[in-house]
Amino acid sequence: MLDVCLLGTSGMMPLPRRHLTALMTRYNGSSLLIDCGEGTQVTIRAQGWSLHDVDVICITHVHGDHIGGLPGLLLSMANSDRTEPLTIIGPSGVKKVADSLRIIAPGLPFEIRYKELSEEFLSIECDGYTLEAFRLKHTVTCYGYSQIIHRGGRFDADRAREAEIPLSAWSRLQKGETVEAEGRVFTPDMVLGPPRKGIKVTYCTDTRPIPKIAECAAGADLFICEGMYGDPEFTGKAKEKKHMVFTDAAALARDAGVKELWLTHFSPSLIRPKDYEQVAREIFPNSHVGKDRKTVTLTFDDE
Amino acid sequence: MLDVCLLGTSGMMPLPRRHLTALMTRYNGSSLLIDCGEGTQVTIRAQGWSLHDVDVICITHVHGDHIGGLPGLLLSMANSDRTEPLTIIGPSGVKKVADSLRIIAPGLPFEIRYKELSEEFLSIECDGYTLEAFRLKHTVTCYGYSQIIHRGGRFDADRAREAEIPLSAWSRLQKGETVEAEGRVFTPDMVLGPPRKGIKVTYCTDTRPIPKIAECAAGADLFICEGMYGDPEFTGKAKEKKHMVFTDAAALARDAGVKELWLTHFSPSLIRPKDYEQVAREIFPNSHVGKDRKTVTLTFDDE
Repeated sequence: MLDVCLLGTSGMMPLPRRHLTALMTRYNGSSLLIDCGEGTQVTIRAQGWSLHDVDVICITHVHGDHIGGLPGLLLSMANSDRTEPLTIIGPSGVKKVADSLRIIAPGLPFEIRYKELSEEFLSIECDGYTLEAFRLKHTVTCYGYSQIIHRGGRFDADRAREAEIPLSAWSRLQKGETVEAEGRVFTPDMVLGPPRKGIKVTYCTDTRPIPKIAECAAGADLFICEGMYGDPEFTGKAKEKKHMVFTDAAALARDAGVKELWLTHFSPSLIRPKDYEQVAREIFPNSHVGKDRKTVTLTFDDE
Repeated sequence: MLDVCLLGTSGMMPLPRRHLTALMTRYNGSSLLIDCGEGTQVTIRAQGWSLHDVDVICITHVHGDHIGGLPGLLLSMANSDRTEPLTIIGPSGVKKVADSLRIIAPGLPFEIRYKELSEEFLSIECDGYTLEAFRLKHTVTCYGYSQIIHRGGRFDADRAREAEIPLSAWSRLQKGETVEAEGRVFTPDMVLGPPRKGIKVTYCTDTRPIPKIAECAAGADLFICEGMYGDPEFTGKAKEKKHMVFTDAAALARDAGVKELWLTHFSPSLIRPKDYEQVAREIFPNSHVGKDRKTVTLTFDDE
């Protein structure tokens, strides 16, 4: 199962009751953070999740509201006695920006490994899950990310017994490993059905709505998408600033066939985003206005 | 009169209900900010004070918890349409650190003028007030600051009438200006008594207690001082980390003969600083544990 927490919902600047937009997920003892604005470490603490276990940080783009909190987070991770390497993934140039910000976080007790993106689309294998990065359309190079937890096929005990596979090999075969035992070789395809639906979360900010987003979010259990403005009348402003209105995000959710949409990255001028939730629901019924630390635990379908 | 707001009380890292230590004052339409950690712009907004009018930012030292929020604040000041120059005062090297952090706040619509300090003590004339900077004793070069609002002598109308000074010259003489009128020259000393007590606020973090602090805070109306630890048993740790316990700060307040002490910059390990207020009061009775956005308006004595 995957714990998902939308750490904040503000765009452009942090507000007293609205942290900057960022996402954190926890899977199998490892945490993923997407974006780290000023104050992101505070909302992680308010949520009660550990900074120590953040193994991967994805940065969508190097605007201040998405990366300004990085040095403070790194300092606090150092204070939590982390020594394991940390991976930072982001658009080409992210290392330069991170290094410049790190003038106040120079000596860290853990290594930082950078993965700079320049592709239109890239799939990255992480510890137990797949990250997909896809290029968005903003004023600077920007990436959306999907976290995908794959799920192998169902284990068929009857077939395992028929093939006289020793019990000691079953659990490794179930994990997809090939096993040698009793002088024979057993492969997962002997006992596993076709791969089953896993878990997919797609995160997408800051960008204009482009068809590629719907392709990359296809079938997601949860699609977290920017909606800078609620009122469709701000469409012109959204185009100018390379952002979206709620209905743009809802249309992407509908086209992608996702299960649920959370809107985020609200303009400071959008005082009550809830007022425009219905506008989004007319296009995609399962639309929800995000709020700080909105949390869900996603499980496999029949768990 | 001088509005004073202790924006936060945390040391080392920002916490969900404790912003990093920083001070803001407002005098005569101009605001002064001392220190700018991650989230300082948020607590300014929570206080409802304007970012736009910050004309001077003093940085005590370039540790992350005292300067990490600078680029975000500058971006937000730019968004508030500020165009007037901003002065940043701090220890030698502050420009290099600020420039490095400004990789996420590169183009600003206002000029930044730096004043780097290397002196043991320096008095700086600002718009209507005096700033005094004095070197502290920390792990890196660090300065304390006093903001002093001077007050001229009382205007003696009887003497003005005796000297046959025209009424039109009175208000300028009262402000300390020399006036030529009706073919004669009038000087302030003809009508003003001796200078009266003004307003003084002294801010002091991070440091060991050294006698110079009491000298520089002498006679302050308000002394805001770090107290990293409440329990005097942490004196050893305070020495090691180059910080103070509450009783160190209280002894400085007593020696300086200040009117009131506010303690701040609490260790995250100090959950309930109020528990140790009495310990400070035994040394200096008018000691108060600070809290986020503790605010006072200081006035001249007989106002």
